[in-house]
Amino acid sequence: MVNIVERNTAQSWEELLLKARAAEARGMKLVAVQGLGFVGCAVVAVVAAAQLPNGQPRYFVIGVDVATPEAQRRIACINAGVAPIASPDPELPKLLAEGRERGNLVATSDPRAFGLAETVLIDINLDVTRMSTQAPGNIELGLESFSSAIKVVGSHMNPAALVIVETTVPIGGCEKIVQPILASELAARGSLEPPRVAHAYERVTPGVNYVRSIRSFYRTYSGMDEVSAKLAGDFLGTIVDVESYPLRQVSSTRASEMAKILENSYRAANIALIQEWTVLAEEVGVNLFEVIESIRVRKGTHDNIRQPGFGVGGYCLTKDSFLAQFSAATLFGSGVKLEMTMRAMEINYAMPLHSVARLLELLDGSLAGKAVALFGVSYIADVGDTRNSPSEQFVDKVKALGAEVRVHDPAVEGWRERPEIPFCAGMEEAARGADAVVFSVPHKAYLSLQAADLKAMVGKRGALLDANNLFGDGVALELRAAQWRVAGVGKGHWRAARFHQA
Amino acid sequence: MVNIVERNTAQSWEELLLKARAAEARGMKLVAVQGLGFVGCAVVAVVAAAQLPNGQPRYFVIGVDVATPEAQRRIACINAGVAPIASPDPELPKLLAEGRERGNLVATSDPRAFGLAETVLIDINLDVTRMSTQAPGNIELGLESFSSAIKVVGSHMNPAALVIVETTVPIGGCEKIVQPILASELAARGSLEPPRVAHAYERVTPGVNYVRSIRSFYRTYSGMDEVSAKLAGDFLGTIVDVESYPLRQVSSTRASEMAKILENSYRAANIALIQEWTVLAEEVGVNLFEVIESIRVRKGTHDNIRQPGFGVGGYCLTKDSFLAQFSAATLFGSGVKLEMTMRAMEINYAMPLHSVARLLELLDGSLAGKAVALFGVSYIADVGDTRNSPSEQFVDKVKALGAEVRVHDPAVEGWRERPEIPFCAGMEEAARGADAVVFSVPHKAYLSLQAADLKAMVGKRGALLDANNLFGDGVALELRAAQWRVAGVGKGHWRAARFHQA
Repeated sequence: MVNIVERNTAQSWEELLLKARAAEARGMKLVAVQGLGFVGCAVVAVVAAAQLPNGQPRYFVIGVDVATPEAQRRIACINAGVAPIASPDPELPKLLAEGRERGNLVATSDPRAFGLAETVLIDINLDVTRMSTQAPGNIELGLESFSSAIKVVGSHMNPAALVIVETTVPIGGCEKIVQPILASELAARGSLEPPRVAHAYERVTPGVNYVRSIRSFYRTYSGMDEVSAKLAGDFLGTIVDVESYPLRQVSSTRASEMAKILENSYRAANIALIQEWTVLAEEVGVNLFEVIESIRVRKGTHDNIRQPGFGVGGYCLTKDSFLAQFSAATLFGSGVKLEMTMRAMEINYAMPLHSVARLLELLDGSLAGKAVALFGVSYIADVGDTRNSPSEQFVDKVKALGAEVRVHDPAVEGWRERPEIPFCAGMEEAARGADAVVFSVPHKAYLSLQAADLKAMVGKRGALLDANNLFGDGVALELRAAQWRVAGVGKGHWRAARFHQA
Repeated sequence: MVNIVERNTAQSWEELLLKARAAEARGMKLVAVQGLGFVGCAVVAVVAAAQLPNGQPRYFVIGVDVATPEAQRRIACINAGVAPIASPDPELPKLLAEGRERGNLVATSDPRAFGLAETVLIDINLDVTRMSTQAPGNIELGLESFSSAIKVVGSHMNPAALVIVETTVPIGGCEKIVQPILASELAARGSLEPPRVAHAYERVTPGVNYVRSIRSFYRTYSGMDEVSAKLAGDFLGTIVDVESYPLRQVSSTRASEMAKILENSYRAANIALIQEWTVLAEEVGVNLFEVIESIRVRKGTHDNIRQPGFGVGGYCLTKDSFLAQFSAATLFGSGVKLEMTMRAMEINYAMPLHSVARLLELLDGSLAGKAVALFGVSYIADVGDTRNSPSEQFVDKVKALGAEVRVHDPAVEGWRERPEIPFCAGMEEAARGADAVVFSVPHKAYLSLQAADLKAMVGKRGALLDANNLFGDGVALELRAAQWRVAGVGKGHWRAARFHQA
C-alpha cells in the first residue's frame, strides 16, 4: 500500500484550473470522476489514456474525492502517478504514471472541479447498511452519503454536462434518486432543463486484468433520455475497445441497473446452490469437483456451474442482491419477494461455518486449546483484497470455540479487518506446531505444496482441511499414510471407506 | 404416432434365437436394451448402426420391453423398422428402418433375450411417485416396478455380462438397488461373482437432434469395479463419436449418478431463479429478456443464465432433483436438506400460475365465462412431447376460474393428457372469438404471426398474453393501437407508462 502525501502532489485550485483550461485549448474534453476507490482509481487511469486518432490525449481527467485522510491519500497517489490500491495488474500504476507524465490526469478534493467537466462519472460506493433476507422493508442502504455526494455534483456541475452513474444502484436509482437530486440542485441554480443522466455499470474485476476489465470488456448502458444515452454511448466508445466488445444499449436505466444486480445475483445464487450439493456430496462420499468438471463440458448450457469453496467475499456478491429486494419494497412499493435470491445470501453468509464444522470433525469435536493455522485471508486468489472476506467469519467462529488462530496470506501485507489475529509473514511460522492447517484461498504460492512440505512445516502429526480444492488425492493419501487427518470441502470421497483403503 | 401391430412383425423366440446365433457367427456381439420408450427406442437404433472398421455391423441388438399393449406396440414398431414415438428427427426412423433392413435389430417381450447378451443396457423409467419439497423422508420413487425390471434382467442374464444403467437413478442407486438385486438373482442361479454393473447416463434431447444427442455428445460413465468401468468405456467408445466428444470416466457410480441429477437440478434451479426476477421485472417495468440478453455476452461465466417463460415440463427437470433429496434421506440416512433445489421445484411447479395471474389482470380480474385460446401444449418448441407439460396446470386453473378453453399445437395430433379439452386443428378455429389468446410455446409456426394475423384470427378486439417471448414490441404496440390488451411474461416494459405512450 503506497502512502504518499507530499506537498508537491497537492493541486491548488488555481493550478488545476490553469491546467484544465490549457488542456481545453489543446482540444481535450474535460472529464471528472467522483470517487477514487477500487473502481474510480482505475477509471481515471483508463480515461486519461484514451487517445484521439492523431495520438493526442482525448481527455483531461480530474479525479475528485472527499477530504477525509484516506481520500486525501488516494488523491495524493493519483497526483504522484502511483496506484492508491495494491493490484497485481502492472497496467494500473503504468497508466497512472503516464497520466501524470502527460499532464492530463490530476486529482483534487475541490468540488468545483465538477463544474469544469463535460462528462462526470460517478464511481462512489452505495453500501447496504442493513441486510435482511426475511423482511424486505428492513433492508437499508447508505443513501445519505450517496445522496450527499450526488448533491455535491449537482451543486457544481455544468447543467449541460452528462452524468454517467457507474455505481451499482438499486433498480430505479437513477430515476428516483440521482436525477431528482441533480434536478433540484440545478433548479436552485436556475436551470430547469432536466439533467442528463446515464447509467453504465462497470464490470471491474480485481486481479491481473484490472485495467483490461474496463477497457476490453462488454459494457451495458442506458440513458434517462435519448440524448443522454447517445452521449454515454459516444463517451464509452472512446474508452472501451468496442470493435472487440460492442457496447449494448438497453432501453431504460432501470434495465441496466437490473442487469448489473442480476448478473451478480445469478453468480451468488449459483454459488449457494452448489453449497447445498457440497454438503450432500460429503454425506454420500462423492468428489463434487470431479462431478462438476464432468458437467462443465456442456458449453453454453452447463459451463457456468460453480464449484465448492470456502465462502463468498468482496464488495459486490455479498450485497448486490439486497439492492434488488430493496428496490421492490422501498422504491416501487411492491410485495415481490426474491426468495431464492435471498436464501442464497443466507447460504453464502453461512458458508464459512461449514468449514468450521469440517474442522471440528477433524479435531474430534473440540477446538478448545487447539492451534489452527489459516492460509488465505483475501477473498480471491492472488489478489490482495480482503473486503468482506469469508475468513473473517471463519476465524471469529474458530476463536469463539476456543482455538488459537494464526493466519498467512502471500497477497496482503496484513489483515486490515482483523488486526488482532497474528499475521505471519512466512508459511512455516504460521504452520509450526499447528493442530490443523486450513487452506481457504487457492493462492499460487500454496498450490505447489506437497505432503512432505506440509509435514515439514507443521513438524508434527497434524490435520489438513482443504477448504478450496488446493490439493489432489495424492497429497491427501500421503498425509493419511503418515496418520494425518484430512478433509476437504466438497471432497466426499476423502471421507469414504474406499479412499481410506486406497 | 405410428400404430403398427401386424402379425408379421412379431418375433417368435425361436426366430430370434436363430437370428442372434447367426449374427454371432458373423462376428457380431449381442446387446440387449431394456425399455423401448423415449430413450430406449433411440438407443437400439444407434447401437444397431455401430460399425466395425470393415463396415460390417458391430452388434446384434435386441430391444426388450414388457407385455403391456403399449409396450407391444413399441416392440412391433421396432420390428417393423418404424419409430414408436413422434420425433422431428428424421434420423430416428431412418436408423430403425436400416436396422430392420440389415437384420441386426429386433425387439421382443421375451426376457430370455437378456440371457443372450454380452451387454445389457437399462433404459427403463424410474419415476418419482410422491414428491415432497418439505419432508425429504416423504419422497417416494417407483422402486417396485424398477426393481422388478432389474430382477427380470438378473434372472436371465449371463453372469459375465455387463449391465449398463442409463436410467436416471438416485445417488447410490447402482450400489444399493441395482447390484444387490442382480447379485441376489445370480446367486439364486449359483453364480457368486459380483455382477458387472456400470452407470452411464444418457443426455438424450428431444427435438431434431434426437439421434445426434446420443451419438455425438459427451458421456460420463463409471463402473462398480475397474473391469465394469473398462468394459463400459469400451462399449460407449463404439457408439459415441469419442474423437469429438471424449468420454469422461468418474471414480464411482455415485459420482455419475449425482452428475446426471445435478446437471438437471442446476438447470431447474436456474429457471426458478429467473422466475423470481420475472415477477420483479414486471413490477418495475423492465423487459427482462433485454436484460438477460445483455448479461449473456459474458461467455463462460454468465451465458447459461435462463430466461422468463411459461413453465417447466418434460420427464427430467420436473423430477430429477427429488432423486437427490431421496438419496440423502432414504439411501444414506442423512439429514441434508437441499433447500434451494427443493424451493426451485416449488417455484417451477407454480410457474404456469403466474401466467394465469397475468391473464386475470388482462381480463379485469375475472375469467368467468371468458373464452381462452391456448397456443402450445407440448413442453418444448417444435417437439411433440407433452409429458408434464406446464399447459396442464394452466388450463386446469383457467377452467377452475370459469373460463372456456380451447387449445392448439402444431407439434402434436392431440393432447393425450387432457383429452377433454377441445383440441383445434387450425389456429383460426382456436382463436375465433376468443377473449384472450395465450401463446405458451415458441413453435416456429407461431413466430411469424403478425398483429394483423392475430386481429384477423380472433375477429374482435381481444387480449394477448405472450407467455414465452414469441412477439416483439411492434406486434404489441400495433395491437394496443387497436385497443387490444397485451401482456407478456417477463415484459415489464409492456406495462410501463412509457410503452403505453409510445
